Amino acid sequence: MNQSNCIVAQSGGPTVAINASLAGVISGVMNSSEYDICYGSINGILGILNENYLNLTDIFSDEDNLQKLKTTPAMYLGSCRHKLPDYKDDDSPYVFIFHQFDKLGIKAFFYIGGNDSMDTVLKLSDYAKKINSPVKIIGIPKTIDNDLCMTDHTPGFGSAAKYIASSMLEIAHDTFIYAVKSVTIVEIMGRDAGWLTAAAALARNEYNTAPQFIYLPEVNFDKDKFISDIKNALTTTNNVIVAVSEGIHDADGSYITSSESVADQFGHQQLSGAGKALEFIVKENIGVKVRSVEINVLQRCASHLASLTDIEESFAQGQKGVELAAAGITASMVCLKRTSNDPYTVEYTYSAIKDIANEARSVPREWINEDGNDICPPLIEYLTPLIQGEVPVVYKNGLPDYMDVSHLHKNQ
Amino acid sequence: MNQSNCIVAQSGGPTVAINASLAGVISGVMNSSEYDICYGSINGILGILNENYLNLTDIFSDEDNLQKLKTTPAMYLGSCRHKLPDYKDDDSPYVFIFHQFDKLGIKAFFYIGGNDSMDTVLKLSDYAKKINSPVKIIGIPKTIDNDLCMTDHTPGFGSAAKYIASSMLEIAHDTFIYAVKSVTIVEIMGRDAGWLTAAAALARNEYNTAPQFIYLPEVNFDKDKFISDIKNALTTTNNVIVAVSEGIHDADGSYITSSESVADQFGHQQLSGAGKALEFIVKENIGVKVRSVEINVLQRCASHLASLTDIEESFAQGQKGVELAAAGITASMVCLKRTSNDPYTVEYTYSAIKDIANEARSVPREWINEDGNDICPPLIEYLTPLIQGEVPVVYKNGLPDYMDVSHLHKNQ
Repeated sequence: MNQSNCIVAQSGGPTVAINASLAGVISGVMNSSEYDICYGSINGILGILNENYLNLTDIFSDEDNLQKLKTTPAMYLGSCRHKLPDYKDDDSPYVFIFHQFDKLGIKAFFYIGGNDSMDTVLKLSDYAKKINSPVKIIGIPKTIDNDLCMTDHTPGFGSAAKYIASSMLEIAHDTFIYAVKSVTIVEIMGRDAGWLTAAAALARNEYNTAPQFIYLPEVNFDKDKFISDIKNALTTTNNVIVAVSEGIHDADGSYITSSESVADQFGHQQLSGAGKALEFIVKENIGVKVRSVEINVLQRCASHLASLTDIEESFAQGQKGVELAAAGITASMVCLKRTSNDPYTVEYTYSAIKDIANEARSVPREWINEDGNDICPPLIEYLTPLIQGEVPVVYKNGLPDYMDVSHLHKNQ
Repeated sequence: MNQSNCIVAQSGGPTVAINASLAGVISGVMNSSEYDICYGSINGILGILNENYLNLTDIFSDEDNLQKLKTTPAMYLGSCRHKLPDYKDDDSPYVFIFHQFDKLGIKAFFYIGGNDSMDTVLKLSDYAKKINSPVKIIGIPKTIDNDLCMTDHTPGFGSAAKYIASSMLEIAHDTFIYAVKSVTIVEIMGRDAGWLTAAAALARNEYNTAPQFIYLPEVNFDKDKFISDIKNALTTTNNVIVAVSEGIHDADGSYITSSESVADQFGHQQLSGAGKALEFIVKENIGVKVRSVEINVLQRCASHLASLTDIEESFAQGQKGVELAAAGITASMVCLKRTSNDPYTVEYTYSAIKDIANEARSVPREWINEDGNDICPPLIEYLTPLIQGEVPVVYKNGLPDYMDVSHLHKNQ
């Protein structure tokens, strides 16, 4: 085969923007003289191991489809949570994958994902180097957690932040209506990094001071301090709202949670219940009306409320990945550099994957107040541009009109 | 005082449409030759007992404000959950309320709320009749639960249904991505009536069969049948999604819940945990990956995703209330009569409050399938028109731009 093709896959947890990056890759390939067909691998790296592909160049030759893909939540190509072994221990999956690359005429591999997916990019890059493969290996970032290093912020984060801030504002309206003292605990995703929870602060405006408190995993949670925070606030306002990360923990590193936790394949703890735990603390120690609300999976899949800034940047980062591979770059991830905050401007760059994979970026301590119960103005300035702009949603019969993903059922 | 004024209040739980009805009342008064000032009572009937009023005619003389009010969630006037005593036992609040009516030149009282609020409308109507008061007492319906009698459907329900169906579709996209067997339980509000949970069925389309099962409180929940439903479905699909009402109960009437319940002032059970309870049942009896998602308070306050049909009908029902009072009608609630389903048309009517207060309307058994695990086509036909159309949301600095409600903090 003399064709010069490429292949793209998606991995990790869903976001509202990961299909925008996929659309960017497809658009980049269509506009490139370097590549012919853009294949899609179904269910991440597993699609290559199972020889399960789509011809994306065919499917998205229709511009309307590409536009619809940009605003469809979660992964059009499906996902996986599959950790490749170290090739020194077991090179069989690598042999198979690079054989598939040969067979399909693949000259570039694009993997759209978060920290765990960048581990796969690093391992494939190392193996490619070892066997002197000319295939370019490029990571395209994606994570609502905003915890990838070497980039200003990650695709998917801005939309999740916009959803969280809007929801917080709507919950505040829901809370103001009764003239009785009440505490509302809002639990937000974020195991190790508090970026998403911090975004709740964007709901504050000329009539709304909620959330009055924000607790992030970057600061050890102190139960007694929390009780006194709430008691103090209730002396000046009826309705106290608290934003809390699912991953808050005490000084010993124990999660503040009311349910058991189990380790997943990557050794992470699966958490639930920080919100419920704080609800119980208020109930037992303060005795006012209290409820907890978990901002559920919709914070990562509510495409009906995406940030236009996020969707456009995600698309551009997909295109940038293709551009980098075509220019001979490999073993790298597309990065964003913020060049100005007001007016907000960014540059599209890249960094070596070895500096990114298996690292994580937390909220800097100096962006959290001394008391550890709120965030500081520079973090507000960092967050604000990321939620700007709305994506026009097409509705059909009263519901958002998304891409048909029935191909994901076919293996079932 | 020779003025002919009127007063409006809001009561019960929040919805996305209750301010549209308030805007309808204000607009109705502005366009009426019958009334001069439209007062607003803060925190429902308590505002009259506490002499806490706003002059809405002044505040909303600006048309832009009225438009913004229409799309602001929860209660602009605040709410209460206050049950008036029987006047035969204690007429003191009634004496005070009707004295306030005299003092303010009130000729009509509009109460926007659900079942419990209609109890207040009935009691005030009965007392007005007893003392031969000329004040017209009119109920304007509001409840996401859609359980008021004598009306086709209630303001706030269509928007909640649209939010639930859209969320269900987005959760389905979130679920499809992994090629592993999984069960997702989605818990939806609805203590005694399954209307909201039924709306999850609207998420089904040409590529999505989820939710595969729908369990409503109108049918006794059978744990063994549930386990066999899920096991059967997992033989043909990887991703099973279940929509369940918070109020499901077994044949003995015991709620299926994993937490204790307490009675509120109206004798209702405060529930949580049907979703968690089903999650545990799947975990213990089937052993596949399982999670539960609670569609939280956003189903009743997410104005960013309102149904245009709902908002327009809610506004019109506010206007109709003013029209009825001006025409001499009292002791009644505004009602909707569906005159055609395709094309969808309605008429605005009214019914005697005695036929509505303290009654509730469930999903008819014939609109639920024989197995009790899904709904039937006539219910889909009933629901579909109610979620049609989108309300243009104005965004400011990345977030929905709602009415300033800082007046609700003033008593705090």
